[in-house]
Amino acid sequence: MPARRLQGVKSSPVRDLLALTLRPEVISFAGGLPAPELFDMDGWQASFAKAADDRRNLQYGPTEGDALLRTLIAERMTRRGLPTSQGDLLITTGSQQALTLVTTALVEPGDVVAVEEPTYLAALQCFQMAGARLVPVASDEQGMIPAALAEVIARDRPTLVYVVSTFANPSGRTLPAPRRQEIATLAAEHDMWVVEDDPYGELRYEGDPVPPLASYGDRVLYLGSLSKIGAPGVRLGWLRAPNTLLPTVVIAKQAADLQTSTIDQAAAAAYLSNTDLDAHVAMLCAAYRERRDTMLTELPTTVPEGTTWTHPDGGMFVWLRLPGEVDTADILKKALTHNVAFVPGPPFFATNPDPATFRMSFTTNTPEDITEGMRRLRITFS
Amino acid sequence: MPARRLQGVKSSPVRDLLALTLRPEVISFAGGLPAPELFDMDGWQASFAKAADDRRNLQYGPTEGDALLRTLIAERMTRRGLPTSQGDLLITTGSQQALTLVTTALVEPGDVVAVEEPTYLAALQCFQMAGARLVPVASDEQGMIPAALAEVIARDRPTLVYVVSTFANPSGRTLPAPRRQEIATLAAEHDMWVVEDDPYGELRYEGDPVPPLASYGDRVLYLGSLSKIGAPGVRLGWLRAPNTLLPTVVIAKQAADLQTSTIDQAAAAAYLSNTDLDAHVAMLCAAYRERRDTMLTELPTTVPEGTTWTHPDGGMFVWLRLPGEVDTADILKKALTHNVAFVPGPPFFATNPDPATFRMSFTTNTPEDITEGMRRLRITFS
Repeated sequence: MPARRLQGVKSSPVRDLLALTLRPEVISFAGGLPAPELFDMDGWQASFAKAADDRRNLQYGPTEGDALLRTLIAERMTRRGLPTSQGDLLITTGSQQALTLVTTALVEPGDVVAVEEPTYLAALQCFQMAGARLVPVASDEQGMIPAALAEVIARDRPTLVYVVSTFANPSGRTLPAPRRQEIATLAAEHDMWVVEDDPYGELRYEGDPVPPLASYGDRVLYLGSLSKIGAPGVRLGWLRAPNTLLPTVVIAKQAADLQTSTIDQAAAAAYLSNTDLDAHVAMLCAAYRERRDTMLTELPTTVPEGTTWTHPDGGMFVWLRLPGEVDTADILKKALTHNVAFVPGPPFFATNPDPATFRMSFTTNTPEDITEGMRRLRITFS
Repeated sequence: MPARRLQGVKSSPVRDLLALTLRPEVISFAGGLPAPELFDMDGWQASFAKAADDRRNLQYGPTEGDALLRTLIAERMTRRGLPTSQGDLLITTGSQQALTLVTTALVEPGDVVAVEEPTYLAALQCFQMAGARLVPVASDEQGMIPAALAEVIARDRPTLVYVVSTFANPSGRTLPAPRRQEIATLAAEHDMWVVEDDPYGELRYEGDPVPPLASYGDRVLYLGSLSKIGAPGVRLGWLRAPNTLLPTVVIAKQAADLQTSTIDQAAAAAYLSNTDLDAHVAMLCAAYRERRDTMLTELPTTVPEGTTWTHPDGGMFVWLRLPGEVDTADILKKALTHNVAFVPGPPFFATNPDPATFRMSFTTNTPEDITEGMRRLRITFS
């Protein structure tokens, strides 16, 4: 009865697992949730009070988004190394919506979308719903391999390439600058779009920042988000796109929801105006660094010998692979009996799921809860 | 470069005209905007203050929506004659998003969607972007004619039928109860879905309420909204759908934006809990009735002899047709030189635009401004 292309699309296991995290006795490493105790409650309360004090913020507004918010985000992106003006931006209901709108604007059923394996599963869902054919591009510890992308381009002529460039979900990996340059050049040479999804880029715990992929060429569409550095419940993301494409995406946005919440946008503009977000991000990074280190320190004595995992320089996730022929979905069921959770890896694969993989998030729980959760995992694996 | 099906889709003229309404010297009857001076500022301020006081409202939440908000909306719909439980509802970013998600879930490229002519133009946009073939169904002063729908069903096998059942945009017409019954019966007999879009239903200024079309059969998907009775900037709508379809739409919602703003949903739940919305709607109806009457009283001495128009029992719009061979787009240009605006009718037609038609909204302006705007229109037409 539903449209044919939706019949194979499954509900996101991560979203379904959110139900489990509501059981207070479970320590969940599953969802990609920021730590709620680190939200800047005072800052957001003041910002929403200010926004709700102006009746224009309860009215319809422009599809492109609040002018002040776009200006403030453009300034922030420019400071971070990606020169941007207000007119380059569309405000979206989270960066997830930016991804869906770009897909709506660019991808016809049957078009090829090139992705890393593993990659963000809600992106895979989005491309599948658009009827895209997903083609994996080989990657290593440094992310997508440009030579492999060149092969895929020659063979499959992708319409777009999707990359979580920095502290990727789920792998935690970061694409180094030379690869960014190569990928941007390939896109320009082959009249193809790259979507750079960058919700985690500001959450760096060690090493030096790498310029955004979008700074290497104008065939790169940049997706940004306040969810991980501000608050995800406010649902604010943005698309930075050249003016050859942005008006088309704005039309897709009109049809999708007319516009993102006027009051949320006004509150975010007030927040960016009146708060030192850099200081808040520095606080988040200090806290998350400790949580990452706690998890990485516990891992060698927690998981079976022969397990491999990534060492993320930032972001939210560690990606692991167990030795031997195991299914992490079975292990999750056992883990839940010990009141601890993670996400099995298979849904993050576009084509060839590896059932021995899984993802652990280290941001949601305090160091103490991480230690206790790892103790429960140790029992699970014993 | 953009996807082929988007190349023919134009930006909404109504949205584009919003830019004009920002010029303070223009009295605009163009946009479908509620009156901002009637927003319940105290109620929304208190509701956002309450919502922003709980850090859970800054976190991610369930895709289906806030449980309390769904319960409160279900209770309100049940009181209005459509028995509904929380589990029947998906909260969306305005009812526009509900329409897009239903289209994503049900309509394949090439599928037929049956619509009235004229009808809500952003719905036409949404169906066009999905690659649907639009087939008009004849209508009269009482809206869609069931016998004409039966013919379309026999000939074109539509996947869905779209109806703004009460105080339609743009015509202002309301489908009477016997036609609702017939249309719901046709849908059930032919395994077809009806989308009942009902953002205006509570804004009744005369006559008796008609039960929702969805109360006549379970093949009717109901779209509701707080935009016209609460505040559009909060962007909250909902879909009521049977459990054979709702989970599929929830998956489409996950891919679209994960979820609607947690804090907006919490604020709306607080607003519905702590405010007498029925009393607020009664106040709105009294104010809008006066505005409608002001416009209808002025019309005979404003527009050329031979002009016809609808007499809406509620909602926001009067729909007009000028005599002779005229193009209302040309007249709009002249009207703008007199600092008054309306929307030309052609974009509201799926197939055969009538250039002599136009739409006037009577809710946004005070009676005094309506009188002045009609004076300017009189000069335009003189």
